Amino acid sequence: MSQPLTLAQTAAFLQAAEDILILTHAHPDGDTLGSGFALLRGLRSLGKRVRLFCPDEIPSKFSFMADAIKYEHYEPKAIITVDIADARLLGDAKEDFPVVHLSIDHHGVNRSYAEKAYIVPEAAACAELIFALLREINAPITPAIADCLYTGISTDTGCFRYSNTTAQTMRIAAKLLEYGARAAELNRRYFETKRKAYFTFERMALERLRVLERGRYAVTALTRAMYDECGANDDEAEQIAAIPRQVEGVLVGATLKERKSGGFKVSLRTYAPADAAAIAKRLGGGGHPRAAGCMIENSSLEEAKAILLEAVREELEGI
Amino acid sequence: MSQPLTLAQTAAFLQAAEDILILTHAHPDGDTLGSGFALLRGLRSLGKRVRLFCPDEIPSKFSFMADAIKYEHYEPKAIITVDIADARLLGDAKEDFPVVHLSIDHHGVNRSYAEKAYIVPEAAACAELIFALLREINAPITPAIADCLYTGISTDTGCFRYSNTTAQTMRIAAKLLEYGARAAELNRRYFETKRKAYFTFERMALERLRVLERGRYAVTALTRAMYDECGANDDEAEQIAAIPRQVEGVLVGATLKERKSGGFKVSLRTYAPADAAAIAKRLGGGGHPRAAGCMIENSSLEEAKAILLEAVREELEGI
Repeated sequence: MSQPLTLAQTAAFLQAAEDILILTHAHPDGDTLGSGFALLRGLRSLGKRVRLFCPDEIPSKFSFMADAIKYEHYEPKAIITVDIADARLLGDAKEDFPVVHLSIDHHGVNRSYAEKAYIVPEAAACAELIFALLREINAPITPAIADCLYTGISTDTGCFRYSNTTAQTMRIAAKLLEYGARAAELNRRYFETKRKAYFTFERMALERLRVLERGRYAVTALTRAMYDECGANDDEAEQIAAIPRQVEGVLVGATLKERKSGGFKVSLRTYAPADAAAIAKRLGGGGHPRAAGCMIENSSLEEAKAILLEAVREELEGI
Repeated sequence: MSQPLTLAQTAAFLQAAEDILILTHAHPDGDTLGSGFALLRGLRSLGKRVRLFCPDEIPSKFSFMADAIKYEHYEPKAIITVDIADARLLGDAKEDFPVVHLSIDHHGVNRSYAEKAYIVPEAAACAELIFALLREINAPITPAIADCLYTGISTDTGCFRYSNTTAQTMRIAAKLLEYGARAAELNRRYFETKRKAYFTFERMALERLRVLERGRYAVTALTRAMYDECGANDDEAEQIAAIPRQVEGVLVGATLKERKSGGFKVSLRTYAPADAAAIAKRLGGGGHPRAAGCMIENSSLEEAKAILLEAVREELEGI
C-alpha cells in the first residue's frame, strides 16, 4: 500500500528531492508527456537535476515538449511516475524500476506500486495536479510549461468535451492561457490536422459502416488490406474507432481491427445505458462502461462480426 | 451611429425595460439562440413580460431551449437584438422591425442599426455578454439558463478550440458548469452526433477530395446528386466544408457546393498566412481571413474548379 500524500506533503517531497528521474507511461499520450515535461521544467527552475524517461518513442505531435532539453548523467535518487495507474504501464521498462518513490496520478484505480502516492481521481488530467504542485512549490509557470500542461488537459478531456471536465479544469485552463499557452495552435495540431492517408482510411471505414439492430448498433472494420493501402497507423485506427457511436441513435459502436498476427481487436464505444465493458467481458475482454475492448481469434471477418453481433444483442436486449 | 453603452448602462437599460421583444438572427446558431433564450429567462425572473422572435425555424438540436416557454400577446416597448452585426441578418423580418432599441453583440463590425449598443469584440460569444449582464441585474443563473449560455459559448468557440477563446471565456464556462450546465451532454449533441446520412455524404466528399499545389491546397465538391442521394442538408454541407483544410500541410481548403438554382457556392478555409478573404474577393465574394466565400455562376463543375484553382494559385504564389 502506498502512503497517501496531501498536496502540501507532495510539494514538500518535491522540494526536498534531488537528482530526480520522472517516468511516463508506454504508448505515451498528451497527459503523461505534458505532466512529465512540465514537472521537469518546473523542478529544474528550482536548480534541481531532473531527467525524464519515456519507455516508447514520443509521437511527433508531442515532440516539441522535449525540444532543447538536455540530460546530464547521474544516478537518480528520487523516481517519480506521472499518470501511471499500474507499474505494468511502464511496459518493458518495468523491470528497470523496481522502486518508485512517488506516483502522481488521477486514476482512481491506481495500484499501490509506489512508496508514496498523490492521487486525485476527480482531476480530469494528471496535468491539473502538476499545475497545483508547481504553484505550491513556487515554480514559475513559463509559456513552455503552460503549453505542456494545456496539452495534458486538452487531450485528456477531448478539448473540454467529455464528462470528466470540471469547473476546476476550466479555471486551470484559463490560468494557462494567461501564462501563455498557445491553445489555438496546439488544438489545431491535436484535434484538426490529419494526414491525407487518414482521410482515405476513414473513407474506406465509412464504406464498411453498417447500422444494425434498429439503429442502435453501428459497426465497421479495418482490414490489413486497408491499413496497407493507406499506410495508416494504430493512432489513426483509434480515431476511426470513435465514429460508429457518433451515428445518431446508436448506443453501441464497434470497430473490428484486423491484427498483423491474425484475429481481430475489437474497440467498443457506448452511450448509457449500454455497457461496453459488459459486452467485452462476454468475449473475454474488459474496460470501462463507455469504452472497452476484446479480441476475437481464429475467425474470418464475417465470423467475427457475427460473434460480436451476438454479444451486442445480449446487451441491447436488456435495455 | 448607435449610442455605445457600458455594461452598467446596459444593465440599467434592461432593468428599466418593460414589454420586451428579443430578436435573434436568421439561420439561427447556438450563440444567437443561447443568448436570446438566456436573456428571456433572466428578464422574466425579474417579473418582466418578454418574448423572443427568431426569423427562421430553430434547428432541432437547439429546440430544447424554447421548451415550456409560453408567449402572451402585447405590443413590445423595448426591442433588443442579440448577436446581430447587421439588421440585414434579420432576413425577411428586417422590414418588421425598423426600430431596434438595443443591440447586444460581440462582432467588431457591428453596424450601427440600433439606437443603443453594447458591443464587446473581445468576447468569444455574445453569450459571454449576456452572462455578465444577468449577473449585473441580479437575475439568478438557473440550470436552464446555464445550458443556454454554455451552448452559445461552446458552439462559437468550437468547444474552446478556436483562437477566439480567452481566459475569460474559460472562467465563464467554469461558472456555468457550477450553475448546472449539462456540458458533456450538450457537447455530445453539438459535436459528436451525426445522422447516418451525414456519414454517407462525407464518404462521397472524401472520394472527391483532391490535394493539389504541392500539398498546400485541398478541394472537394458537393453536387446536387450527392445531396439528393444522401438527403443531406446545408448544415451538413457546412460540416464537410471544414474537412479540406484539415489535411496535414494544407493552407487553403475549398468546398464547392452546387446550388439548386445552378452555379456553385464556394466555402474557403485557410490557415495563416493564406488569406481566404483575398481569394474570395478575386471571385467577387468576401469574408474573414480564415473563412470566406464566393459564388461561381454559369460553369460546369470542372470549369468552376479551374476558375477557383487560378484564384487559389495567385494567393499561394505570394506565400
